[in-house]
Amino acid sequence: MRIGFVQLAPVLGNRQTTIARLDRLFASVGAADLLVLPELCNSGYHFSSRQQAWETSEEISDSVFVRYLESVCAARNLYLVSGLNERDGGDLYNSAVLVGPRGYVGRYRKLHLFMDEKDYFRPGDGLPVLDIGACRVGMLVCFDWIFPEAWRILALKGADVVCHPANLVLPFAQRAVPVHALTNRFYTVTANRVGQEGDLVFTGCSTIADIQGNVLLQASESEERVGVVDVDVALARDKRITPRNDVLRDRRTDQYELLLRG
Amino acid sequence: MRIGFVQLAPVLGNRQTTIARLDRLFASVGAADLLVLPELCNSGYHFSSRQQAWETSEEISDSVFVRYLESVCAARNLYLVSGLNERDGGDLYNSAVLVGPRGYVGRYRKLHLFMDEKDYFRPGDGLPVLDIGACRVGMLVCFDWIFPEAWRILALKGADVVCHPANLVLPFAQRAVPVHALTNRFYTVTANRVGQEGDLVFTGCSTIADIQGNVLLQASESEERVGVVDVDVALARDKRITPRNDVLRDRRTDQYELLLRG
Repeated sequence: MRIGFVQLAPVLGNRQTTIARLDRLFASVGAADLLVLPELCNSGYHFSSRQQAWETSEEISDSVFVRYLESVCAARNLYLVSGLNERDGGDLYNSAVLVGPRGYVGRYRKLHLFMDEKDYFRPGDGLPVLDIGACRVGMLVCFDWIFPEAWRILALKGADVVCHPANLVLPFAQRAVPVHALTNRFYTVTANRVGQEGDLVFTGCSTIADIQGNVLLQASESEERVGVVDVDVALARDKRITPRNDVLRDRRTDQYELLLRG
Repeated sequence: MRIGFVQLAPVLGNRQTTIARLDRLFASVGAADLLVLPELCNSGYHFSSRQQAWETSEEISDSVFVRYLESVCAARNLYLVSGLNERDGGDLYNSAVLVGPRGYVGRYRKLHLFMDEKDYFRPGDGLPVLDIGACRVGMLVCFDWIFPEAWRILALKGADVVCHPANLVLPFAQRAVPVHALTNRFYTVTANRVGQEGDLVFTGCSTIADIQGNVLLQASESEERVGVVDVDVALARDKRITPRNDVLRDRRTDQYELLLRG
């Protein structure tokens, strides 16, 4: 199957301009089955207040942005994962939504919040893995990258591809995520944004890694582009790194209790 | 403090030649506080039978090799971590021992066994962190590298430096271990062996990484050498990656239960 990223600069507080940019980028895409967009794509990132975070959020059931993604998926017969500033009642979540040709499929709410996100968002609950037929999709958002626990749990739940919308301002994740791909033997797609909001400069370099941690494709620090590669999902379902070693079955769960404390 | 690796080719079944090689290498070392030697340094790696593994093993209390390490530590006022084919009663373990100027300090027994090691060794039990004054030392052996759980547990137990004796035949660990350093904000020293035993070619490239996952020093694939760098242990005791984010405290332990199953 063909998986990839859409690297762009979402526009803070201007959803229509973001959608126009996406339209232009999608027009350049050939065949693809699953594409990943950056974090908080419907709102932008660097809120000046909780009020701004609130005003740029959307309920999934009433989201102009999710309806737009649905229309793209239906027209192009593909799946999209996108970061979403998600409103639910009086709460906001830094979420990733999965949308397909037949509409909205499911969402993940960021577990590990970064910096001032702690002022705006509630942390999430749960690490879903969603089956779209061609593969099983896990989702993580940006700063989740530094917690190997989250990546491992998605492997244990059977994820073949982990989709990772991001608004990275540090250069570390693009190096680290391919190693999560290697230790878990799944594919990873980090879709980072580019551009600047206030004093934040985003680091681009969206990255696709294979089950051996090889970087299959990496964007530049600043370009808006779509990157797509062919992957063999069957490889992600074989967790043997040697005939006698399986990276999941060889785990010494009897030794790992401290992971739940600490 | 000054930490480093000793990259060499231990000789299968010929401890005295290995010790002679080590003597030559130690003679070239300047000041150092903690050095790491490869896996199974007292025996070699590629046993043709359980009998050969047995014959080349040693009880720690009765080990020519550990006595040699103790003499080096006393003469040079340093600590050494070395892989050891350890006999205990009728069992063998693929262990790492920590030895200092006042003698033997402690040991770790490899939790995750690779390939035919499963025929020779019992898997270990426990992930000790040992305080040597200048820093707190964690130990892992070779294939343990692919289990982020083990590295994380050593961070949770307060390790500043993780010493990683290895006999790597694949090229992956040297890329992955610096990322474990980054996600846990400790220093790592992978001491890999070089040379060949039968059909196994070892991949060298012993690597020291800092708390941001930067490679401070890496050896070549084939040279026998000692590599030492200066590190600031205080940096490993600050787990904040931003003023509001701490890579240990931000963990969502309420979400990680599956890590003990799977």
